[in-house]
Amino acid sequence: MVKVFAPGVVKLFGEHAVVYGKPALAATIDRGVYVECEKGDRLVVETVGVPASLRYFPEEKRAEALGSERFFAYIDAALRVAEELWGSLRARFTIKSDLPPGIGAATSAAVSVGVLKAYSLCAGVEVDAYSLAKLGHRVELEVQGIASPMDTAATSIGGVLKIWASPFRLEKLNASLPPFYIAVLPRVGTTREIVADVKALLDRRRSAANVIEAIGSLVEEAHACLLAGDLECLGELMYMNNWLLGALGVVDGRVVTLLEMARPFIYGGKISGAGRGGVVLLLPREGTMVERVLNSLGHVYHKVAITETGAAAV
Amino acid sequence: MVKVFAPGVVKLFGEHAVVYGKPALAATIDRGVYVECEKGDRLVVETVGVPASLRYFPEEKRAEALGSERFFAYIDAALRVAEELWGSLRARFTIKSDLPPGIGAATSAAVSVGVLKAYSLCAGVEVDAYSLAKLGHRVELEVQGIASPMDTAATSIGGVLKIWASPFRLEKLNASLPPFYIAVLPRVGTTREIVADVKALLDRRRSAANVIEAIGSLVEEAHACLLAGDLECLGELMYMNNWLLGALGVVDGRVVTLLEMARPFIYGGKISGAGRGGVVLLLPREGTMVERVLNSLGHVYHKVAITETGAAAV
Repeated sequence: MVKVFAPGVVKLFGEHAVVYGKPALAATIDRGVYVECEKGDRLVVETVGVPASLRYFPEEKRAEALGSERFFAYIDAALRVAEELWGSLRARFTIKSDLPPGIGAATSAAVSVGVLKAYSLCAGVEVDAYSLAKLGHRVELEVQGIASPMDTAATSIGGVLKIWASPFRLEKLNASLPPFYIAVLPRVGTTREIVADVKALLDRRRSAANVIEAIGSLVEEAHACLLAGDLECLGELMYMNNWLLGALGVVDGRVVTLLEMARPFIYGGKISGAGRGGVVLLLPREGTMVERVLNSLGHVYHKVAITETGAAAV
Repeated sequence: MVKVFAPGVVKLFGEHAVVYGKPALAATIDRGVYVECEKGDRLVVETVGVPASLRYFPEEKRAEALGSERFFAYIDAALRVAEELWGSLRARFTIKSDLPPGIGAATSAAVSVGVLKAYSLCAGVEVDAYSLAKLGHRVELEVQGIASPMDTAATSIGGVLKIWASPFRLEKLNASLPPFYIAVLPRVGTTREIVADVKALLDRRRSAANVIEAIGSLVEEAHACLLAGDLECLGELMYMNNWLLGALGVVDGRVVTLLEMARPFIYGGKISGAGRGGVVLLLPREGTMVERVLNSLGHVYHKVAITETGAAAV
């Protein structure tokens, strides 16, 4: 049996500005999507956990539970791409995520890439990370019509990455971070809607362009602090990045309150991803106290570590 | 009897960045400091209201209540400057403020300028607004050692002003705003401490300079929107300015929560002044609802209108 782990992705710095030509810093974490593949007599996909336990029969396009159509769209597209490349396969896929979907932690990219990777291994093919990144992007493009190649590249390649969106390129950084926390706040709006709102703000108020510039230059400073392992600097720049994201309309009071309450116990923190809830990063000084704050506010949270590798057999 | 009103001053846009060469937009409001002067047989200064009811005998440097030494320092210096220019005066001064001191609404400037203006009128001298501005600045310099000429100029001249700090100049704008709200939040730190913290941040993290740039360009856009009377634009830029001030470390969760709760009923809002509490401006769409939100949060607030004139007999 093949078992693949495709890591979730957090944006350390630079989300939104990355859409406008600035680099972003992203990292893969030790939570994400597990895909098992075991050859059998028919093609079956079973998902366990978030958002529900479901059983799916691709050949009949039939699921044994309601909802999650969008989730299955990624699986369908990944299976189609995989079959085209590596031939048809009779197998049982089991997909399990230890991150909730739709929080901005790249779970759809991890599902797409994880299924591709597991399929290839099950079919006896070795695919390198960069090819996997391209195939994953093709899956997201098929499902979403338009898609950033960032998440699929990050979950395929792994580690701490500096990424430019257009033209797409990435650089793997020789950087690490101690384990940190991600809190998950209920999300208001989808990534696509939020990105469209930021675009509208930029069209409406010319001052918003300077916020993008400020984020872009902050990413460069954060890059240097990452390489130096300077947590004080990274934390302070996270706060600053978070307020700048607020100026683009994607941070709300829940996040500000959380960061304020955790402030004595963290170097800094920020939303990660499109915002309006979703993932909030907290870089801890005192983990136990951070957990207390998160518990007292009733937030769902995980302690995570950065992974060096992307989607791979485990 | 002479009665002078010296208006309080709010910063509509650009505080903090004004220290680094950017222009700011300020306006005088119909709350501030009242100074009465009535000739008598000795020099007496009586303050009514905030922070307490006090009686002060300048000749003996004796006050009949404790505290407020700093407040009296402005009065002392203003009386000294006035006596030097316009001769000694035996009179009873009564000072009343309808704004609390130390909230960043220029009450110390208003006290200085109000006393100077009342003294001059009581002594039968007419002082023009620009001379008054210079004298007021001299008073603040004597008390504080270092002082911005902005507040004293604004309370002397009145109206909506575009102000540059260094070299100091100002431009009176032909602009108006409908009445708006100021909420007063307990202040954490003095203006001087907060300004020093921002300076330290700028020295420490080069990204902060881009935040100053972003605020500077936002002030120019706000200037255009003010002239056009575009409240939608002004409100949106107020929010943006507030988040940018957050990136400088001077906005806290109380302000974000207040603006978020008031959001359906305002065009926008922001802190006014050095921050960490103090004055919060709210540009209302629906005044009654804004008042309800302010009451529900237990904030002290005032409805204010912009005044066209500076310190003058009333």
